[in-house]
Amino acid sequence: MILQPVVNIAEICARKGVEQVVLSPGSRCAPLTIAFARHPKLTVRTVSDERAAAFIALGMALTTGKPTVLVCTSGTAALNYAPAVAEAFFQQVPLLLLTADRPPEWIDQLDGQTIRQQNVYGQHIKQSYTFPVDFAHPDAVWHSERMVSEALNTAKAFPAGPVHINVPLREPFYPAPGEELVFEKQVKIIEEEQPLFDLSQMQALKLQSGILKYNKVLVLAGQGQRDEALLQSLRAFADSTGAVVVGDSISNVHELEGVIRHQDVFLANESKEKLAQLQPDLLITFGKSIISKALKLYLRQHKPKAQWHLQPAGQVADTFQALTKIIRCSPRSFFASMAGSTKVDPTFSKAWKGADRAAGEFLKTYAASAPYSELPLVARLLQQLPKLSNLHLANSMAVRYANLVGLQPEQQVEVYANRGTSGIDGSTSTAVGCALTSAGITTLLTGDLAFFYDRNGLWHNYLPPNLRIVLLNNHAGGIFRLIDGPKQQPELAPYFETKQNLDAQNTAKDFGMYYTSVETLESLEEVLPQFLAPKAGAGILEIFTDSPSNAEAFEAYRQAVRKIRL
Amino acid sequence: MILQPVVNIAEICARKGVEQVVLSPGSRCAPLTIAFARHPKLTVRTVSDERAAAFIALGMALTTGKPTVLVCTSGTAALNYAPAVAEAFFQQVPLLLLTADRPPEWIDQLDGQTIRQQNVYGQHIKQSYTFPVDFAHPDAVWHSERMVSEALNTAKAFPAGPVHINVPLREPFYPAPGEELVFEKQVKIIEEEQPLFDLSQMQALKLQSGILKYNKVLVLAGQGQRDEALLQSLRAFADSTGAVVVGDSISNVHELEGVIRHQDVFLANESKEKLAQLQPDLLITFGKSIISKALKLYLRQHKPKAQWHLQPAGQVADTFQALTKIIRCSPRSFFASMAGSTKVDPTFSKAWKGADRAAGEFLKTYAASAPYSELPLVARLLQQLPKLSNLHLANSMAVRYANLVGLQPEQQVEVYANRGTSGIDGSTSTAVGCALTSAGITTLLTGDLAFFYDRNGLWHNYLPPNLRIVLLNNHAGGIFRLIDGPKQQPELAPYFETKQNLDAQNTAKDFGMYYTSVETLESLEEVLPQFLAPKAGAGILEIFTDSPSNAEAFEAYRQAVRKIRL
Repeated sequence: MILQPVVNIAEICARKGVEQVVLSPGSRCAPLTIAFARHPKLTVRTVSDERAAAFIALGMALTTGKPTVLVCTSGTAALNYAPAVAEAFFQQVPLLLLTADRPPEWIDQLDGQTIRQQNVYGQHIKQSYTFPVDFAHPDAVWHSERMVSEALNTAKAFPAGPVHINVPLREPFYPAPGEELVFEKQVKIIEEEQPLFDLSQMQALKLQSGILKYNKVLVLAGQGQRDEALLQSLRAFADSTGAVVVGDSISNVHELEGVIRHQDVFLANESKEKLAQLQPDLLITFGKSIISKALKLYLRQHKPKAQWHLQPAGQVADTFQALTKIIRCSPRSFFASMAGSTKVDPTFSKAWKGADRAAGEFLKTYAASAPYSELPLVARLLQQLPKLSNLHLANSMAVRYANLVGLQPEQQVEVYANRGTSGIDGSTSTAVGCALTSAGITTLLTGDLAFFYDRNGLWHNYLPPNLRIVLLNNHAGGIFRLIDGPKQQPELAPYFETKQNLDAQNTAKDFGMYYTSVETLESLEEVLPQFLAPKAGAGILEIFTDSPSNAEAFEAYRQAVRKIRL
Repeated sequence: MILQPVVNIAEICARKGVEQVVLSPGSRCAPLTIAFARHPKLTVRTVSDERAAAFIALGMALTTGKPTVLVCTSGTAALNYAPAVAEAFFQQVPLLLLTADRPPEWIDQLDGQTIRQQNVYGQHIKQSYTFPVDFAHPDAVWHSERMVSEALNTAKAFPAGPVHINVPLREPFYPAPGEELVFEKQVKIIEEEQPLFDLSQMQALKLQSGILKYNKVLVLAGQGQRDEALLQSLRAFADSTGAVVVGDSISNVHELEGVIRHQDVFLANESKEKLAQLQPDLLITFGKSIISKALKLYLRQHKPKAQWHLQPAGQVADTFQALTKIIRCSPRSFFASMAGSTKVDPTFSKAWKGADRAAGEFLKTYAASAPYSELPLVARLLQQLPKLSNLHLANSMAVRYANLVGLQPEQQVEVYANRGTSGIDGSTSTAVGCALTSAGITTLLTGDLAFFYDRNGLWHNYLPPNLRIVLLNNHAGGIFRLIDGPKQQPELAPYFETKQNLDAQNTAKDFGMYYTSVETLESLEEVLPQFLAPKAGAGILEIFTDSPSNAEAFEAYRQAVRKIRL
């Protein structure tokens, strides 16, 4: 028989809004596996590689907005979750990790699959709990039930993130044959109502008077998911004040009319005079990380007089070394309260919009005329993405190329990327998790290193038919040929680029996926409509390029960008 | 230019006996990459998946007995090392992990590939250091040099294990084009002479008198590498006292004449009377973990009056709940000092040897006549292993099957297995590391889940021609059909066994390996000589079986074993 408090974990999860569970196989975790598998309200899948399992769970939590539960056995299984746990921590995605463990008396006794699991995620977890192991005293039952509620409340509270319950289990691990599990309805649940994080009237008045000191207001959106209410209040603020709004593709503000999307292009321009006109005196930021290195460097070199950062709670980064004020409210509330509060210098917004327009026109010409290489290939791919689809951008060059190109407002494509830690270790799995919990097409744009690194993201029995993988295969870590330092070193090819010989055809065979490959811009455009069609099924489109040619073409692009007339 | 103290890390490593370095590509780690790649005395390879890289390094440290250095970039790269770090910690294998990091002022500032790397390996590391970031004061240089010596001394000191230096690095990361690196010869080195861990004469006298209280002395060897000096002193002790010596295959004492090797078979016998005759009154243990569950259960149920555990230093496990004395000396010294110290009851050793002989004869008949299934397949494989070769046993069923079968003394096969944590996550990589640093054939015996989990162990440019992979593919985690709990649950197939569809043919194509597959016992015997031949090149021999048939055959084996006449 399985201990009732262990069975109740599944019940509490279901009652508190969990929908998706990802298990990895094991014996020590059998009580959890059986409790979750038998719960009528939960969707349960099993994925053997825990590293992939955790990134798949992350993808699910991203699209559903709800904590995904992960269950693994004792030992290094828990450590294989760690890369995704760190990504979830910094990307602020709710996960509940349940790691089965030996009971405390058997730790360090040379039994198999036994490590030191308490606090195993160190500083990359919002909270770590240890589930009780003895239930003789009724307070232990109360403790166990309270713990699951607390863990889920913590995972969801702003900023959301991963939470860990280590679950020591003694035998027996299995119900007797035919024994039924009872999910107790009277189990203890603690609900938590979250604050709205609205600005108070007093605060709003103070900030409305504060903003009047500045003439050049730039709003910068960091990584964030598409949020209709936020977009509306941001639009109201921008329209009424003339403030400039700028966002990378992962900030998901590209649907906003008039938003600046090509900063990664025009901020690399050589015209110091033009660039100086873009310097804000007030920078208002919200959200998480910024991809554009050009934007980061620009703002560090052209510091605003003040930077206000909007963030309800949690540690705040001083990304541009310019932070002067942290405002603890939701961005939505801030922009709603601040609509019409000031009038921004029209020459300032004209300078940004002019530069953005010039960069957009340059890109159009560039994509149409550039030689066969990765950047124009990405440009042509993004143009054809289906409306209302998801785009997952892998690290490291895929996300950079896509950010240079940008998305069109009318496409309504939602963009995901693991920019919490910017690892290449889980992009495929994360995209699989997104696809499994989304109705539309999920396109993963990835490079060969990221793709083969995380090949196990496809190694399970749940291949989502709406998954499309576009693989930029240059047989190397091509980024190292594009950045200045390594390309001049004799170690470039063997130790930085790390040439690798795989292509994805055998992988596609292994996993029963449609496969096609292209080697010209024209053939890409030709195959894309069919490849991206809703009923085409899961597929891999492999685009072969040559790393030195990409580097040459990218250098030509960089030279051209420096000289655009802004 | 690269800071001289960073360049000196490579020099100190080389001077302190490091030979092998495994890098993973990255930009932040470029100063370390370049320093190691350019050092004339180090063998440097690059492996893109850090999880695989760390297990490869573990395999190298196992065969060379010297610390392997690992170098990775900042971010989740370091977390992907964690499974191998835990395995190295519990298997006591020396590794030096160098993780590049952002400088402290840029942690938590939303820069890419930035996590909280200090102490990131928690309780699974012998020591964690932080490399200095500023060298304006000369004491910082002294600190940096001292740290590398200390780290390597700590990694090697008994019990050996992994050590971590986190290396925060500011730009520039690269030497100017053409700039030469200087490895400073006058760099500070601290040597450490290790104690011999010999018994003193006083201690020996006391133990010699102590052992006389016992008539039935059983020596049990846990996991350990082949050690000629130990084997000699153990032989002298056993020959002179009549003590019984028992060892699993991973204890590498199977070359010893008269050693008990089939305990995993005969201790599952139903004859309570015969088993009672095997109860020791003194159990002398050394080494690390035990595979045989039958042996563990037997000793927990038939506790000796006393258990002496021989271990120079470090935490001691009470695996059989019978530990009474910890003796801080080397097993070699203990057995040398204790030769001739007592006379063991001959009926006791006769009972063990009789049981071992009966089990050995049973196995011979069984291997020759059993129906096609995994256990007899493994028996036939082990018979044909080349003399003086390495055998790496993957978790979970491969190592258990092999331990049931055992190795013949005259084969002189050295056995490796990741039994520190018993994970399936790095067996292929570890075997690759062993093969890269061994002259003879390294055979990996693995199952399909372990093999595909760690497929990236083959994803690099160093495929060792002496690697042979024998893959037991039953398309599932077959172990779950063999153990009592899960096989009776409706969740067996979907959530425990986790059916997987891959076979290894495409993988072999991907990595340019020879491939063959078999589906009969006869064809296995036919292909093995050629497959295992020294010049055959790296290959995969895939043995297809059916999980339910394996379970049926194994159940028949278990029934037969219960009834062997001991």
